[in-house]
Amino acid sequence: MSPARLETFADGVFAIAATLLILNIDTQIAGDLPNLGDRLLHIWPSYLAYAVSFVTIGIMWVNHHTVMGQVVRVDRRFMFATIGLLLCIAFVPFPTRLVSEHIRTEGAEAAALAYGFTMVATAIMFSVTWFYASLGGRLLRPDADPAVVSGISRSYLPGPWIYLGATLIALVSPTASVLLFAAIALFYVLESSIFGNSA
Amino acid sequence: MSPARLETFADGVFAIAATLLILNIDTQIAGDLPNLGDRLLHIWPSYLAYAVSFVTIGIMWVNHHTVMGQVVRVDRRFMFATIGLLLCIAFVPFPTRLVSEHIRTEGAEAAALAYGFTMVATAIMFSVTWFYASLGGRLLRPDADPAVVSGISRSYLPGPWIYLGATLIALVSPTASVLLFAAIALFYVLESSIFGNSA
Amino acid sequence: MSPARLETFADGVFAIAATLLILNIDTQIAGDLPNLGDRLLHIWPSYLAYAVSFVTIGIMWVNHHTVMGQVVRVDRRFMFATIGLLLCIAFVPFPTRLVSEHIRTEGAEAAALAYGFTMVATAIMFSVTWFYASLGGRLLRPDADPAVVSGISRSYLPGPWIYLGATLIALVSPTASVLLFAAIALFYVLESSIFGNSA
Amino acid sequence: MSPARLETFADGVFAIAATLLILNIDTQIAGDLPNLGDRLLHIWPSYLAYAVSFVTIGIMWVNHHTVMGQVVRVDRRFMFATIGLLLCIAFVPFPTRLVSEHIRTEGAEAAALAYGFTMVATAIMFSVTWFYASLGGRLLRPDADPAVVSGISRSYLPGPWIYLGATLIALVSPTASVLLFAAIALFYVLESSIFGNSA
Repeated sequence: MSPARLETFADGVFAIAATLLILNIDTQIAGDLPNLGDRLLHIWPSYLAYAVSFVTIGIMWVNHHTVMGQVVRVDRRFMFATIGLLLCIAFVPFPTRLVSEHIRTEGAEAAALAYGFTMVATAIMFSVTWFYASLGGRLLRPDADPAVVSGISRSYLPGPWIYLGATLIALVSPTASVLLFAAIALFYVLESSIFGNSA
Repeated sequence: MSPARLETFADGVFAIAATLLILNIDTQIAGDLPNLGDRLLHIWPSYLAYAVSFVTIGIMWVNHHTVMGQVVRVDRRFMFATIGLLLCIAFVPFPTRLVSEHIRTEGAEAAALAYGFTMVATAIMFSVTWFYASLGGRLLRPDADPAVVSGISRSYLPGPWIYLGATLIALVSPTASVLLFAAIALFYVLESSIFGNSA
Repeated sequence: MSPARLETFADGVFAIAATLLILNIDTQIAGDLPNLGDRLLHIWPSYLAYAVSFVTIGIMWVNHHTVMGQVVRVDRRFMFATIGLLLCIAFVPFPTRLVSEHIRTEGAEAAALAYGFTMVATAIMFSVTWFYASLGGRLLRPDADPAVVSGISRSYLPGPWIYLGATLIALVSPTASVLLFAAIALFYVLESSIFGNSA
Repeated sequence: MSPARLETFADGVFAIAATLLILNIDTQIAGDLPNLGDRLLHIWPSYLAYAVSFVTIGIMWVNHHTVMGQVVRVDRRFMFATIGLLLCIAFVPFPTRLVSEHIRTEGAEAAALAYGFTMVATAIMFSVTWFYASLGGRLLRPDADPAVVSGISRSYLPGPWIYLGATLIALVSPTASVLLFAAIALFYVLESSIFGNSA
């Protein structure tokens, strides 16, 4: 299979997972609502969770293309690693819904932990995918830029640990943990818009 | 990343957001219905809302391709602006459902305002995307036709203001506001079919 | 916009509409079920409706490619006609659900009529799309085979009338109407497998 | 129609079917939940069912590309066989949900049988698709490697029977049947990662 084929399939999962996020907001307005306006204001955490998860999936999609831009061929192991990664991406709408619905209830801690561990798992799968492809240059283009390759490696290594830290903060304050994930996404967008503007 | 790659991802979100709109009609026939025929006639605003949002997303998809037809390369900022735009597009099914379910209840104003502000946000993100790409010709093809470029710019500048006007009418009459959005979509289709038939 | 671009977007809507059909079966097993096995057997019309609509959407996808295979360029009117066609395709899951849930209740007539009129509208939009592209060879390839072109035209002209006939039978027998749509799909698959095996 | 066109459509259905699986977990946390954390732990079979079905659909997607890699042209019969195959793939989320919700209730046997028979039907459609394309080299590339072709044939012949065996075990132990499907997916990933790493 060509890397292009794999990218197309992955693009589909990224796009669908992001677009399904809106269903999480839908569930918040089911049933009889005496005052729709108040309800729409009351569920503001849903909008924030939607935006954070949508942008996070968008960032991951951009990262996936950065990885695939260095890959010249794919083998079975790489394909299954990618399927494992997509399994995590497609999972994101579920903890997003948990956070939307429970961040202001006593279920907040469980919701934030579910969200965080999903991010940790996704970051781990990103690392597995990347290091399988890049170690010894296994699947990389012969002309892959060493600076780009080591740049990706450097940025992936701390990923799971940063996410794990943000996750464990939920044990103290679920709200802080969720806001930290929002901040990480925002920081990434700003940082890569300012410094990484090469694509 | 190539513009083609970005277009493929965007096409996916446009197609999924449009196709998910049908779920909004589904929710109107849940539960026991003593008389299905009457119910199917009663929910006619849902069909209208479905059609208006589907065609509106279709128009936005056409517009997005008009923009991308002028763009020769993309950078990180442009990618994140596009993700922000797609975040708005994928949001459209939610206010569409609000309008479907509430336009004949006391929640009509809130529903129409939610629909309108979503359109305003989408129009703003279209402008951000376009003007980032086009100012100083930053990301445009060297041979981009200046008439086309300034034509797009002229048509985008008033967009958010027209939508904002249509939105605020909901404070007086939610039905009028929603019908205005339907009229804008219909006008666009007719006008561009009659005058803009070059593509 | 190139025809290829339009085809990709249309392919997305066809694929999503077909895959969303499964959600109609899901709604039949919600809530507490004392005996799951009996329930799964009891909802057999849902499986049939799923299969008929899936294959019907598949046939329409094949037809759309037959049309696009003759089209060399697209203009705005053709794009909006296609969006109108896709609006009908994406609508199909809704009447499919109505038939699944109501074909054995007193809502059967309404459900069958809804299904039928959706098919009539889809057939009309197919004709609009095709005849706009083909009249006077407006958007066709210069080397389009006249035999293929007139063959498509001949097969499209009776389409809406056949579907209208099958729809109106629902006024006498909703079950007969629905089975007729199943028979049309089956006939098409068999006939084009036996005689039309060129593609 | 070109094989590439058919592959794109199939990729869409594979990606959507896999991504919709997450909705099955969503349904498990609807309504008021006194203790979200306990609930999230209690529904662990849902996560397992999600992972097994996601990876199984992923494996089928890889297999479909292996088949298409040998196919040089498609005809109508092959297209309809593929639509039949995709009909089965898109069905997978439904029995996955049955297993998620019922594997620990008295509905376990019915759920496991529904899951198994879906897999049997999918395996049969894979065989129909493949043997139609490959018998007498009907649709294969002239330069198709005979070793690859007979390798695919050998691996497809026992598929339905293995799945049928795993399905019938549900009559004795639904849990064992479902775990066997998990083991088959795991075995396939490991085996093809270790031995079949050419792709």
